[in-house]
Amino acid sequence: MTPPFDTLAFRLFALSVLVLVFKMLVLASWTSAIRLRKKIFAAPEDYASQGLPVQDVRDPDVARARRAHRNDLENILPYFAVGAVYAATAPSAAGAWLCFGGFTLARVLHTLFYLNERMPHRTLAYALGYFALLWMILSSAWSLFAR
Amino acid sequence: MTPPFDTLAFRLFALSVLVLVFKMLVLASWTSAIRLRKKIFAAPEDYASQGLPVQDVRDPDVARARRAHRNDLENILPYFAVGAVYAATAPSAAGAWLCFGGFTLARVLHTLFYLNERMPHRTLAYALGYFALLWMILSSAWSLFAR
Amino acid sequence: MTPPFDTLAFRLFALSVLVLVFKMLVLASWTSAIRLRKKIFAAPEDYASQGLPVQDVRDPDVARARRAHRNDLENILPYFAVGAVYAATAPSAAGAWLCFGGFTLARVLHTLFYLNERMPHRTLAYALGYFALLWMILSSAWSLFAR
Repeated sequence: MTPPFDTLAFRLFALSVLVLVFKMLVLASWTSAIRLRKKIFAAPEDYASQGLPVQDVRDPDVARARRAHRNDLENILPYFAVGAVYAATAPSAAGAWLCFGGFTLARVLHTLFYLNERMPHRTLAYALGYFALLWMILSSAWSLFAR
Repeated sequence: MTPPFDTLAFRLFALSVLVLVFKMLVLASWTSAIRLRKKIFAAPEDYASQGLPVQDVRDPDVARARRAHRNDLENILPYFAVGAVYAATAPSAAGAWLCFGGFTLARVLHTLFYLNERMPHRTLAYALGYFALLWMILSSAWSLFAR
Repeated sequence: MTPPFDTLAFRLFALSVLVLVFKMLVLASWTSAIRLRKKIFAAPEDYASQGLPVQDVRDPDVARARRAHRNDLENILPYFAVGAVYAATAPSAAGAWLCFGGFTLARVLHTLFYLNERMPHRTLAYALGYFALLWMILSSAWSLFAR
């Protein structure tokens, strides 16, 4: 990795980016697989391209996968900006491992729990990611102003 | 902050990242608070975990908070990439303050105006953010090619 | 551009960021133009501000533009994080051109094909972006661990 991305914090952050986007790509394919299996598509022309009559139904499994995906957009994508800022504050190795590892674990679990309808597990995974993000924001703000 | 994140432009950008993601986290909690108060949840299993019968209603207040949040996804998240590029073009202090400060202010106001149903205030805040983003794109493109 | 953003890979990545966010801003305006032309708005107060009675209709053209936009959120925004990591692995010039250029082209085409209801063109453009992203993830992971 080219500097300044060669520090431990940036390398861990980069790894978490790769893992989390991979997870999002798998979720997108999971949604597509449900659509293909159930023949429930997003756009009218998709039915035509499959030689099927157009339907306008809301499938609970597709809706569930899409909710999990939207929750990723709301949490993982902001993390990519906050995580980079946090890595640039030169956190301790322990801080980097806890924040990046904790957030990544929380979000992988969140998707698994969402797709498997596990409650309150899903809420706990969401809360872990939420507070990891909040902690990185507060810690980074402290570094921006205090140092 | 480690170099190259120690310049004024990157520090202001980093601050705007922290403020805007904090704002998005508050909005997410605001949505959750409405859901808990009104007992209107996103997934069927959420009703079960609260000991309630499953409902499928579309609450106008939840829908409003979600629209504000989706508008954030469409505007704030692209800004995180464009703002980093703009900061890397070594803008003037005035440019950095105006773009990063202006965009951040616009998006905080957008959320407040959306939740309080203030029109045309919301449209004006949206337009301010939109044109700040457009300006950063054009200014960065100029720097990429001309210098 | 300030170091380390002065390498070819980072400059190409920065250019793709500017092109893709510009594309997203154009799509947002396209959606607004449909809304204004058809008088179909997102929020009840928008009707009042236009002096119109509130409606709750789901317009197929607005829904189409919004689906294209959401697909951008799910693919372009994760690319901004993965592309930065990939650029930091100091890829070859050919790799940078293929990945950044290929992804950008794929996503511009995806929007055009979506709005024009072109199938299976849209699916092919989506797949090209998907596999470009997957390739950048695998290539970056290799660089993170092997070097």
